[in-house]
Amino acid sequence: MKSFRKELWFNVPGRRAFINITSPVEQALVESKIREGLALVNAMHITASVFINDDEPGLHRDYQRWLEKLAPHAPTSQYQHNRTGEDNADAHMKRQIMGREVVVAITRGKLDIGPWEQIFYGEFDGYRNKRVLVKVIGE
Amino acid sequence: MKSFRKELWFNVPGRRAFINITSPVEQALVESKIREGLALVNAMHITASVFINDDEPGLHRDYQRWLEKLAPHAPTSQYQHNRTGEDNADAHMKRQIMGREVVVAITRGKLDIGPWEQIFYGEFDGYRNKRVLVKVIGE
Amino acid sequence: MKSFRKELWFNVPGRRAFINITSPVEQALVESKIREGLALVNAMHITASVFINDDEPGLHRDYQRWLEKLAPHAPTSQYQHNRTGEDNADAHMKRQIMGREVVVAITRGKLDIGPWEQIFYGEFDGYRNKRVLVKVIGE
Repeated sequence: MKSFRKELWFNVPGRRAFINITSPVEQALVESKIREGLALVNAMHITASVFINDDEPGLHRDYQRWLEKLAPHAPTSQYQHNRTGEDNADAHMKRQIMGREVVVAITRGKLDIGPWEQIFYGEFDGYRNKRVLVKVIGE
Repeated sequence: MKSFRKELWFNVPGRRAFINITSPVEQALVESKIREGLALVNAMHITASVFINDDEPGLHRDYQRWLEKLAPHAPTSQYQHNRTGEDNADAHMKRQIMGREVVVAITRGKLDIGPWEQIFYGEFDGYRNKRVLVKVIGE
Repeated sequence: MKSFRKELWFNVPGRRAFINITSPVEQALVESKIREGLALVNAMHITASVFINDDEPGLHRDYQRWLEKLAPHAPTSQYQHNRTGEDNADAHMKRQIMGREVVVAITRGKLDIGPWEQIFYGEFDGYRNKRVLVKVIGE
């Protein structure tokens, strides 16, 4: 069994963003030389997500509005977590809805995903360096 | 290390449904001849889910009502995504709550799941052919 | 390829709790003697979660309040599932938001997690024995 590890780094110049990371994950897979196995792609931070969905800007705006409705940022005083000096409690909730990680099958050296599946980094508390782990195991 | 891949196909004659796929996943596991490892079961479409929960019809109706409350289908004009000609923006949200995938342990040739755990395909935008990927790795 | 399996057991003396299980998962990893691979950590019950987030008590109280808002326990009569004699339909919903499982990379014999990532067992229907499965595969 082979294994391969790579970090992808991000510094989002805003509080929230969705970034398509399908290409860097494919690049990591090429570097891994693994042809059959599983790839784990996970946020290493607890106010960020990795998820798979559509690369359609209107949908991304819908997601942002929807997450804001389910877990509003303001008033920040509504969250006990923010008494620690943070203002990001809502980001911990948005991340739970969108998820920490995806696991993707590797088949014949490719990401084995459907025609519209794209992998995204979801940032909910940006303005600083954060990373995603790509771990591939297989043969 | 061995690996095995199988697609399960669905064509739901309605917009939404939950289908118990535990048996076909077990069948794929038998075909794989893998006795120790991990099985990834994921929707290959972005308006569908694979999740694990109870096979109880009342609960499934509760889930449908609850998901409709959290991410209503109508009015479809509330979602920018639907300006692309789709009417399925809500399905992209429902799928995020229920999840894209499950990873299940394989132990002594069986799905290593709890007594009430059953694997479901969750369709949120049916009336067409869609598929689930089963990928098993191990020995 | 090696594989390793361990169950962690819980009996929460209340309906709901979040329990940090990072140390017992690390202990299982030491016992597995696996240095490179993937660890699956999943609830074996359908009214409980395994998730990764912050070990901050204020945030945990925020999560409880937020989950109660998204999927209220009372009135229990609002859920068809509860006509089966249960009163835990809300727990099946809370668990979907927080998730069934996490998959964690194993690198050089350690959990390959970010500085604030901690693994939690989330109980939403306690007062009885329930378990978490840790399955590690790799080399």
